[in-house]
Formats: sequence, C-alpha cells, structure tokens
Amino acid sequence: MMDTVINLGEKIEFKGKHNDLITIGEILIDMISQDYSDNFEGDTYQRHFGGSPSNIAINTKRLGINSITASTVGNDGLGEFLIQYLQQVNIDTSTIQRVDDATSMVLITKSKSTPTPIFYRHADYYLQYNSKLAKGIQESKIMHFTCWPISMEPARSTIEKCITEAKANNLLIGFDPNYNPKLWKKSDGIEYIKSIMPYVDIVKPSLDDAERLFGEDDIENHVQEFLRLGAKLVIMTLGKDGAIVSNGKETLTFKSLATEVTDTTGAGDAFWSGFYTAIIKGNTVKEALQLGFAVSAYKLKYTGAVVNLPKLEDIKSNYF
Amino acid sequence: MMDTVINLGEKIEFKGKHNDLITIGEILIDMISQDYSDNFEGDTYQRHFGGSPSNIAINTKRLGINSITASTVGNDGLGEFLIQYLQQVNIDTSTIQRVDDATSMVLITKSKSTPTPIFYRHADYYLQYNSKLAKGIQESKIMHFTCWPISMEPARSTIEKCITEAKANNLLIGFDPNYNPKLWKKSDGIEYIKSIMPYVDIVKPSLDDAERLFGEDDIENHVQEFLRLGAKLVIMTLGKDGAIVSNGKETLTFKSLATEVTDTTGAGDAFWSGFYTAIIKGNTVKEALQLGFAVSAYKLKYTGAVVNLPKLEDIKSNYF
Repeated sequence: MMDTVINLGEKIEFKGKHNDLITIGEILIDMISQDYSDNFEGDTYQRHFGGSPSNIAINTKRLGINSITASTVGNDGLGEFLIQYLQQVNIDTSTIQRVDDATSMVLITKSKSTPTPIFYRHADYYLQYNSKLAKGIQESKIMHFTCWPISMEPARSTIEKCITEAKANNLLIGFDPNYNPKLWKKSDGIEYIKSIMPYVDIVKPSLDDAERLFGEDDIENHVQEFLRLGAKLVIMTLGKDGAIVSNGKETLTFKSLATEVTDTTGAGDAFWSGFYTAIIKGNTVKEALQLGFAVSAYKLKYTGAVVNLPKLEDIKSNYF
Repeated sequence: MMDTVINLGEKIEFKGKHNDLITIGEILIDMISQDYSDNFEGDTYQRHFGGSPSNIAINTKRLGINSITASTVGNDGLGEFLIQYLQQVNIDTSTIQRVDDATSMVLITKSKSTPTPIFYRHADYYLQYNSKLAKGIQESKIMHFTCWPISMEPARSTIEKCITEAKANNLLIGFDPNYNPKLWKKSDGIEYIKSIMPYVDIVKPSLDDAERLFGEDDIENHVQEFLRLGAKLVIMTLGKDGAIVSNGKETLTFKSLATEVTDTTGAGDAFWSGFYTAIIKGNTVKEALQLGFAVSAYKLKYTGAVVNLPKLEDIKSNYF
C-alpha cells in the first residue's frame, strides 16, 4: 500500500472494502499438557484452538471489525473442530482449505521455563493460492501473515502471490517476523525474511526475533536494520519494558500497560489485534499503537492464547 | 533362515545367540481420547506407549524371552518417555535411534466404530542401518518387522539391509503385512509388499489385509496367494472365527480361544508375542500357534495395546 511514510500522528485511509482484515498462515491444534512439567512428563493433554493468524482473526472479530483467515486443515475431526470454532465467532470460513493430510498440531508442555514445543506440521504448509484466497485479499483492507507459511513450500509461493495481489489492491501489509529455525525446513530462513522486508509495511519483531535475524546489537540498531531492509513501520516489542516504534523519521517509545501478568501466551497476537482494529476504526497510528498495548495488557490478565476480548471501545474507556 | 518347509509338528532349531527376538519398525505415542467419540469431538487426550514392534518386544520380554527393538524417536520429551518405558521392562535400548524431528504420534479417538486414526509420522521413518542395528540382528534368533518402515524412505532401505543381514545370520523372519494406504507415501504399497514375500518366513495377515492386497477372494485362495508369492508359513487370522494356517503342505484351522472380549487393540501383537516366545522355548510350531492364540485371548480380557502379561508357562497351564 504504502509507497510513502506511515506517519505516526495520522490516520491510515482505506478504500471501502467488504472485509477489514485477512490473516494468512497456520491454523492448528495446540495440544497442551494438563500439568506443569519441563520435558513433557505429563500424560494428559488438552486440545485448544491455535495458530497466530487464526487467533488474530478471532480477536479482531471480538474487538469489533470484520476478519477472515486463510489457512489449511486436514480432512479429519481436528480440522472440523477448528472450522467450527471459527464459525462460532461468525467468521466466514470459505478461505479455509482442506487437504488429505493431518491437521497440524503443536504439543506444548505447561512450564515456568520456556520449553521447546514439539511441532507436527502437516496440513498447514499445503496452503494454495486459489480464487477464494484471491477474492479474500481483493475485498480486504489489511493483509497479515506470519513466518510459518514462508518456511515451507507450497505455502511460501502462495504468500508471494498474496503479496502481489495485496499490492495491486492497495492493502496495508503486516508481517510477524517471528523466526524459529525449528520450523524452517529450508536453510534460507534468515535470508528469506530479510528479502521480503521491502514488500511489507509493518513488522513487529521482538528483541529475540531481531537477535536471531541480525545477531546481538543495540535495540536502536535493530530497528534501523528493519527500516534499512525496507519495512515502513517497525514495532520492536521489549516485553515488560514496553516497545520502541519507528517509521525512520519519528521514533516513539511506549511503556507496557500490563498491570497483572497471568499468562504471556498470545500477548503479541493481542497487540496486533488491538492495533489493526484501532487502525480500521479511524484512530491515528500512535493511538492504534496505544490501543494495541492496551489489548495486550488486557489479555495478559487471563490464561490462554485467545481470551474473550470485549469491544475495543470498552478497552479504550478502561485504559485511557 | 528357511530354505525348506516349516513343519507344523516340529520345533524350530536355533543357533545359540545372545538375544532371542529383534523387532524393527515404529515406536510412537498413541494419543488416545479420554471419552468415546466418532470424530475426535473430545478435548482431553492421554499419552500411551505405542507401535506394534515395540509392543511385541515388551510382551515377549514379559512372557519370558530376551527381546530388543530397533526404531527411531525424536530428541524430545516424548522420545525420552518411550525409551524410559522400554528400560522399565529391562529392554536394552541401544538399538533405539534419535533424530532431530518430532517423535511420531498417532491420535486415536475411543469409539465403538472404527474411526481412522490421525497419523503424525516424523522420527519413525528415519530409521538408519548402523552398526548397533547390525549387531542386534547378528545376535538374535528371530527378526520381526512391520509395514510402517517399508512405507517410507530411508526406513525401507534400512529394512532391506536388515533382511540381507538376517538371511546371512540364519534368523527366522516374521513380517506383519498390515497394509494401510494412509501410511504409504509411495504409491507402490501393494506391489512392494508382494515383492518382499520371498524373503520372509512367516506372515500373519488378517482377512482385511489379504483383501487389500489381493482383492476379494476365498480365504483358502488368499492363503495360497501368500504361499505362491514365497512366504513359508501363512497365519491368516479371522477374528472371532479363529485362524487358518498353512505351510503349503499341511493346513490347520484354529478356533479362537477368547472367552471375554474387552478391547481388541493389540490382540494381533499379543498373538505374535505368544507365538515367538513359544517357538524360542522349544515348542513345536503347532503348539506355538496354540500358545499365540492363548496369549491373544488373555490380552482381549484387558484394555490397552500392552497389558501386564504373565510368563508364558502360566498362560499355558491356564489354557491347556
């Protein structure tokens, strides 16, 4: 969308479109241990709806905008469960594809430390570019995608076509550069993520993401590196220390709004959700960033990746 | 081993070896739903030790012979769980390989019908032919393998090398032709299974297995087809109707010994386990077949793929 700068004090103008946000990438089962353990010592696991793009679609729908998500499930009961979950929050699931492989799953052990999940990637990476996906992009104002689909073919080629379609239709493009080498079957992860930076408008790296991509450096240098590569707005999150945001001309720092931290799972998705919802609802970029952090702070009080968010207006009146 | 006929009335003579049985193939997590449902409607799942070759290794160890199993797990907590499970029944795990992919998992929904499991195949098919596996074969009397490893590379090539090593060391070779097209990434499943028949001594197809391989036909014709392809002893199981066994010269029928059927999971593995244990303990082939069916009948009374079997002698004195 943006060939110019994203000004922090201004609203982003969108053309009238049928849908607000399309998120593209993984939808999957989070299979989470019932008990706390560091190395999957537990025998009992609970199935949960998961996948960052799908979580953002649900969050933004609850916050009050129109969202869809494009991703792939298997022809199995788990895929059925995920589709029904989306339908229960009134998300149109015509952009969910089904393939003859298992619905992807991530096995997670509840822990006070940060143990590595076990990834069972199957259906998710078969994402195809088809007419329903093209239509979903054409009819949306914002497109968001993650590292999962670009880490494996054919999903990577699909994302490349999505970017072309989004550019042709003036969508704002957000990308989560949450690089995890465990997910990357190809060895070109870091290089590839850098190479797509000119084609995305907004990135939200964590400090960990930046260090995995560029090695250790000052926070300011990390932000500059994303800008130099071509991103137009960089939102570098620093956990409890808030965030630093820059468009290359102006740089702002934000304090965390969290008052009570019960579970950090999905806090980043909650930020994206609040930010996108606020942008669509006509707030300035700076206000939208504040609202993103407010939604993230709200989510931190509750357990689970997707919590029952209120309308954005209610969160706004609570925090500001 | 057998270039001659396996005579039903005779014992099978083995050279003195350090180990009795080596089973080769899948070891995995059976993730089983807590509640009954037909299409994975349940949210709670229990982790169980699984994989037919590994189950047979544990069963035969409990029945009273020395067994090892060769298979591959991931460098994760699930792999650790499977290895520790084997060690708890005093099975030497030096033939368990570890790779940098997830431990394989099968998601199963408890049901009165027979719903399709969801397969998450990862570590299992990386099985490599290495010096520990070669040594395991050289030091064993019987080698047993299943369809899982021959359905994907590199495990298939590993099994081919195992067969060569087993032949060179005069092992008796048992093969479970439990063909499931869902597991077969290559399209040559039926053809390939037929092609290895001359290299195995004993096969135990179910009627379903036979129909998937040869189409619908009389039971007697199915048995003849396995013999014609090169198997030396065919044990065709017929569920509650018992079994028909033939070496091409003699054909015997067996009645099911089951008195009480609580759970059929693992009944076939229990048969193999009783049969191999009895063969090693110097029973005739016919007696060993009877003892196989007795162990299967014992297992059918209890829930789970692997139950706490007593020594073979105790089962023998109970049934005969």
